[in-house]
Amino acid sequence: MTDFSATKALFHMPEGVIYLDGNSLGPLPLSASERVARTVEAEWGEMLITGWNKAGWMARPTDLGDRIGRLIGAEKGTVVLGDTLSIKVYQALASALELNPDRRVVLSDSGNFPSDLYIAEGLLKSLGRGYTLKVVAPEEVEAAIDETIAVTMITEVDYRTGRKHDMARLTAKAHAKGAVAVWDLAHSAGAVEVDLAGVGADFAVGCTYKYLNGGPGAPAFIYVAPRHADSARPALSGWLGHDAPFAFELNYRPHRGIERMRVGTPPVIAMAALEAALDIWDMTTMADVRARSLELTDRFIAGVEATCPMLKLVTPRDHQTRGSQVSFAFPDGYAAMQALIARGVIGDFRAPDIMRFGFTPLYIGPQDVDAAVAIIAEVMNQRLWDRPEFKARSRVT
Amino acid sequence: MTDFSATKALFHMPEGVIYLDGNSLGPLPLSASERVARTVEAEWGEMLITGWNKAGWMARPTDLGDRIGRLIGAEKGTVVLGDTLSIKVYQALASALELNPDRRVVLSDSGNFPSDLYIAEGLLKSLGRGYTLKVVAPEEVEAAIDETIAVTMITEVDYRTGRKHDMARLTAKAHAKGAVAVWDLAHSAGAVEVDLAGVGADFAVGCTYKYLNGGPGAPAFIYVAPRHADSARPALSGWLGHDAPFAFELNYRPHRGIERMRVGTPPVIAMAALEAALDIWDMTTMADVRARSLELTDRFIAGVEATCPMLKLVTPRDHQTRGSQVSFAFPDGYAAMQALIARGVIGDFRAPDIMRFGFTPLYIGPQDVDAAVAIIAEVMNQRLWDRPEFKARSRVT
Repeated sequence: MTDFSATKALFHMPEGVIYLDGNSLGPLPLSASERVARTVEAEWGEMLITGWNKAGWMARPTDLGDRIGRLIGAEKGTVVLGDTLSIKVYQALASALELNPDRRVVLSDSGNFPSDLYIAEGLLKSLGRGYTLKVVAPEEVEAAIDETIAVTMITEVDYRTGRKHDMARLTAKAHAKGAVAVWDLAHSAGAVEVDLAGVGADFAVGCTYKYLNGGPGAPAFIYVAPRHADSARPALSGWLGHDAPFAFELNYRPHRGIERMRVGTPPVIAMAALEAALDIWDMTTMADVRARSLELTDRFIAGVEATCPMLKLVTPRDHQTRGSQVSFAFPDGYAAMQALIARGVIGDFRAPDIMRFGFTPLYIGPQDVDAAVAIIAEVMNQRLWDRPEFKARSRVT
Repeated sequence: MTDFSATKALFHMPEGVIYLDGNSLGPLPLSASERVARTVEAEWGEMLITGWNKAGWMARPTDLGDRIGRLIGAEKGTVVLGDTLSIKVYQALASALELNPDRRVVLSDSGNFPSDLYIAEGLLKSLGRGYTLKVVAPEEVEAAIDETIAVTMITEVDYRTGRKHDMARLTAKAHAKGAVAVWDLAHSAGAVEVDLAGVGADFAVGCTYKYLNGGPGAPAFIYVAPRHADSARPALSGWLGHDAPFAFELNYRPHRGIERMRVGTPPVIAMAALEAALDIWDMTTMADVRARSLELTDRFIAGVEATCPMLKLVTPRDHQTRGSQVSFAFPDGYAAMQALIARGVIGDFRAPDIMRFGFTPLYIGPQDVDAAVAIIAEVMNQRLWDRPEFKARSRVT
């Protein structure tokens, strides 16, 4: 059983803060400061260009990919780091479409993160040739998978509501109908148990700055099932995905396996922070994290519902369909979240009316939940949010 | 006149090293350590998610873009940071092609960096519809620009030879023939005087880890001419290029101007290092840097040619067509470079036989050149490279 008090001690948390926004940006692992400083000073500073070999920078995207792979049920050698999640969505979707060349429809749902939809829209417009994006309500996805669908592009856990799709079931349906399944694990990696190999996912993508605690703007990752890894064509065919990048050939020849999904020069300093964050993940298992997460979200839902009747739960009560966050709808949700933040409870707001709270067992425990509930009850019941200073909206929330 | 001894004092240089590889990875600016540590500890650690506003993370890609813009003759508000150079090449080329919808040929040259060619190859294959990539010898580019060319995609300075194209002349020819001009400034930004606005370039891209000293894997940048900025369609249409990213609309609406070229979450820690590096650029002008660079490369060429008859200069002698590096061909160039590195002179090798030396006035002066020449003469004339330990090739050079 994981010792979550031990993992909690490895993060920096500002005084007086209960941080329920690790689903947006994870906190600083204490060892990340030193790891980053070492990379900057002892590697970049002292090794200069030779750091690519000597310090292992060049191999880090696959080294760290394997460490993330363990958390999402991926086979060894199937995950590589790089770029941003939006770029990896593009790459996965473009490759997936080519594996199903006779179909023209990408299926997604309105609970997907908008950037995935925007990226698909942009890609399909570039491709022309009748490609279309079909967006249905999350509960209609399963029924919408039919023989016209080339690719299902679904985010497992809804960024707004915390609703979790049944990845195994939808993947099986996709395959039964001849579609390729692309999964976005933005709110899954480090949050819920994912078994990519087990469910037979074709492609998956995710980010590392949320539950994985890799730092602001940490790189994304992409998974390609072994059965596709040597045949998928990377539309973003950059030199580090080439079979022999340093031969500087004029024509592209993809590398074997997952390395072909590399594009350009990897972000060395950002990877140092992520590496430190992943050390903490070595102290636990996703089964333990998931059990603790459900305990925390159950406790939070019960506490808030017992004290704040004005907050309407939008996250599923059923464990099977709940991610690792709890969201409440409230018409003045933006102002209420600002008032909470002013009191040290940091969650976030998602338009139009969602107050979102993330639960991250590595550093949030039952006592934090109880303390947060008490503050939320006070802010809501005393209408502390109904003040002008909390109502002005900023661009970034 | 720039005080280059003052700028040199602001970099960390390992003992006993003469670093002539700043055209591959610039050295560590002393202030970058502290800037990165502050971003990690005082921003990520203390501000957590609120850093996006409070610490200005969200605006940094355009803030730093403007600072780079000054070095490449770009108008204010035309440059934004993000992703890697290969991704930005893809983005620029895809947008450029749509501005010229009736043509199907992309023109490039065999001196372009292979990743640009690979990226074009991948994009054109995705687009289908008869798109082709035409690759000619560098000296044939001008003659090859005709009414069939949709886009010229040219790297100004050849990564191998250091040959510099005439950007004004080729851009004018492209426009005269109705082509859109995309320039790659990988070996230009911080190396030579670039006047994007003056020459009327349509798009430009570049990286920040070479002459700009932003650190290993530092983000790339993209320039879009003001006349295209509100009409160019970003094929990589991510949420941070949306007109209202935090409205989470289901459909993509591009932001006005250069911000539409943003894709995903920006790399905050990497940008901190780059910001520190750009502070040093505020102490100089590109005219001063260029004058000094030519002085250094002239001195180096003269010194090596006077002492090492076996090294064949492949970099142009003519200032007009020379970048900020000097390359010599030598059949055992790989081994010779390893022998030089063992003696503290760090340059690099590019297949098949190029020994490459970069000159970076911010931290390399005439005395460094003279010291490097003396070591090169010794290594070459005493055949110190002709030893087994220098001949084994590593993958990364």
